[in-house]
Amino acid sequence: MDAYTRDQTYAPPGAPAAVVLARDTAEVVTAMVWASEQRVPVVPRGGGTGLAGGATAVDGCLVLSLAKMTAIREIVPQDHLAVVEPGVITADLDRAAREHGLMYAPDPSSHEISTIGGNLATNAGGLRCVKYGVTRDSALGLEVVLAGGQVVRTGGRTVKGVTGYDLTGLFVGSEGTLGVITSATVRLRPAPAEPPSTVLATFGTLAAAGRAASLIMGAGLRPSLLELIDRATLRAIDEWRGIDLDTGTAAVVLAQTDGPECPAGELLRWCEEAGADFAAASTDETESAALLDIRRLAYPAAERLGNCLVEDVCVPRSRLPEMIERIERAAERHGVRILTVAHAGDGNLHPLFVFERGRAGPPPPVQAAADEVFSAAIELGGTLTGEHGVGVLKRPWLDGELGPDTLAVHRRIKEALDPDGLLNPGKAI
Amino acid sequence: MDAYTRDQTYAPPGAPAAVVLARDTAEVVTAMVWASEQRVPVVPRGGGTGLAGGATAVDGCLVLSLAKMTAIREIVPQDHLAVVEPGVITADLDRAAREHGLMYAPDPSSHEISTIGGNLATNAGGLRCVKYGVTRDSALGLEVVLAGGQVVRTGGRTVKGVTGYDLTGLFVGSEGTLGVITSATVRLRPAPAEPPSTVLATFGTLAAAGRAASLIMGAGLRPSLLELIDRATLRAIDEWRGIDLDTGTAAVVLAQTDGPECPAGELLRWCEEAGADFAAASTDETESAALLDIRRLAYPAAERLGNCLVEDVCVPRSRLPEMIERIERAAERHGVRILTVAHAGDGNLHPLFVFERGRAGPPPPVQAAADEVFSAAIELGGTLTGEHGVGVLKRPWLDGELGPDTLAVHRRIKEALDPDGLLNPGKAI
Repeated sequence: MDAYTRDQTYAPPGAPAAVVLARDTAEVVTAMVWASEQRVPVVPRGGGTGLAGGATAVDGCLVLSLAKMTAIREIVPQDHLAVVEPGVITADLDRAAREHGLMYAPDPSSHEISTIGGNLATNAGGLRCVKYGVTRDSALGLEVVLAGGQVVRTGGRTVKGVTGYDLTGLFVGSEGTLGVITSATVRLRPAPAEPPSTVLATFGTLAAAGRAASLIMGAGLRPSLLELIDRATLRAIDEWRGIDLDTGTAAVVLAQTDGPECPAGELLRWCEEAGADFAAASTDETESAALLDIRRLAYPAAERLGNCLVEDVCVPRSRLPEMIERIERAAERHGVRILTVAHAGDGNLHPLFVFERGRAGPPPPVQAAADEVFSAAIELGGTLTGEHGVGVLKRPWLDGELGPDTLAVHRRIKEALDPDGLLNPGKAI
Repeated sequence: MDAYTRDQTYAPPGAPAAVVLARDTAEVVTAMVWASEQRVPVVPRGGGTGLAGGATAVDGCLVLSLAKMTAIREIVPQDHLAVVEPGVITADLDRAAREHGLMYAPDPSSHEISTIGGNLATNAGGLRCVKYGVTRDSALGLEVVLAGGQVVRTGGRTVKGVTGYDLTGLFVGSEGTLGVITSATVRLRPAPAEPPSTVLATFGTLAAAGRAASLIMGAGLRPSLLELIDRATLRAIDEWRGIDLDTGTAAVVLAQTDGPECPAGELLRWCEEAGADFAAASTDETESAALLDIRRLAYPAAERLGNCLVEDVCVPRSRLPEMIERIERAAERHGVRILTVAHAGDGNLHPLFVFERGRAGPPPPVQAAADEVFSAAIELGGTLTGEHGVGVLKRPWLDGELGPDTLAVHRRIKEALDPDGLLNPGKAI
């Protein structure tokens, strides 16, 4: 059972009473009715790739895995939509859509191992958000099993609809605390006709790289991907896989464009304007994929170095360079190793705080540095979590961002939908 | 006080006890605290341009107008956002944004007279939704006064953020039944660099016009506007304003593109493919504005003919031609005059059912035809309301779309946030 108790964090799991591998909505209903009658807490989970401890088991709970519900029930090419079960692997849906000239846009870095259900539960972001939005923006409708076992449907198959409250939006990102998503109608988009152009630029300072991202977005360009990788991360990747890293490189900006509204030449121009040492564009698919792999290797490369506290702060886009500086200062002040990658186009940064493996949680200097980073994000008008969710690991900071009155509204909604507090207790809110 | 009791529908208002014209959040709090202590229902309102009776006064209520809160508190060009009070006229915000090379994308046809607060309360759509999304997609954060007078803040200034539930989405579109929006942080977008190209195509049959819209969207093009106007509407506009309507024209498709990813030539090509009698593109700004005015005149032209029941069905995009046929059949069967305009790119149709002025509500044949249209929309996988909201006028059909279990979830949320049922009672859910 142990494999069903954790996500990808160090958050220590409780001991579940049992694991249910549901194969259809009826089995989810059966599980929820039983749990509700027995007052047993339920921890729903998808691929277990979460980065905030949202799927971590609690003592005595029923772990409810949706990973076996993997059917793509429908693809309706003419309406640009699909109906999927929650256990579908994100990249599998994208591949299925591409057979119809369409794509499923949301692509968290974990897209080859994470599930649509998990993506919906956390409102996952990813590399293409900067152009195509987050998971919420691709969710048209849901089937949800409530705490008592009732099955409700939200939204529908239309791109617009205002009958009743936006329950689809409410369940998306609620981290399994309000209901269990058993099916989703998701938006597909036309796949770009041409292969994307990928731009790589290297910078001698992290601040210059941050400025490049701010200039690109400020100019109103809309790349389909705009990432920043700092020196510490590049080194970790280089040590592991060998990427011929230049010792003078403090940061890399990686951008992609998949449409004529964002010419690659403009992306290059702004990188040079910001002081890039090197900047080049490629339309070769193999080369593009290799460049993107650098970004996708960031987490596994960091995890080779020890346990990681993964922060997920997001700031207004123009504050990105300032936020990067604040992270560097926190690392220095507390003597902590921080690797930073960022969805720079969204102002969403992932500082990875490395600490000794085997510890139950981060040591005090890491906690202190993380506190400082979070406070800086709030001070700059930002948020604690751009796309990973609160889970258990970020709950200590929740009140600092939301404040007691807004948090009280959350608790009233939670109580209205799950009066016995059985759904994923201790998570998200 | 009478002017504050109605919206733009025939829905008969009750007699309010008083009208409050709030000038700031503190006055809204005072009003809500008083109303809560006295158990007086509160009907919030903006510009009073609603099309579903959402702002219609109820007997003994306090009408709470936000129309005097008209400050644009901030425009932050580098972060593409603005902070506004709810009484700001939608088009005024757009004009203010354009001084910074930006735009506020949502543009309901009423944008010169409707307010941001009202747009948010109904999650208003409009002409540019097909490319830029609905009001929800431009709402980053809100300040909301709850039924008891507490002030809460949702969302923030970042383009991503998953701390807690999506309360911004929950309040948007809740038609004043969960709280009173007193400020909003909204997303601005880069204004297109070039003036848009406007395409006008005329068709001998309504079905061919519907097909043109389906072909354009099916091809993955993303025009910034894609409207359809039927013969009855064109005639009403022609009689009023004189637009040299050709007698052979059964419908017009009006499209606009504001970016290189959607060439005007492609729009023309698909219109011709669908059998257009005439199709031409213009980049002249005066001419473009005149063409758009035709669309914006649809409602006032219909209202010259009598009272109007404005339907707002939305279907999956590929079902548009079928939905148009079903509307025509309903009109014939019940001998009712129906004018149809559609945000064709979204599958969102507005059949306007004309009936004799002075009646309290639609006569039985109009009700029967409307019932039939609504049933057809549901049957085709659609919804009762794409962008106008439920208000009072669409409540009879609510249960038919949502079903009792989903409706029960709405009522639990309503009760959690407004236990005494004081906020806009009898509306939306």
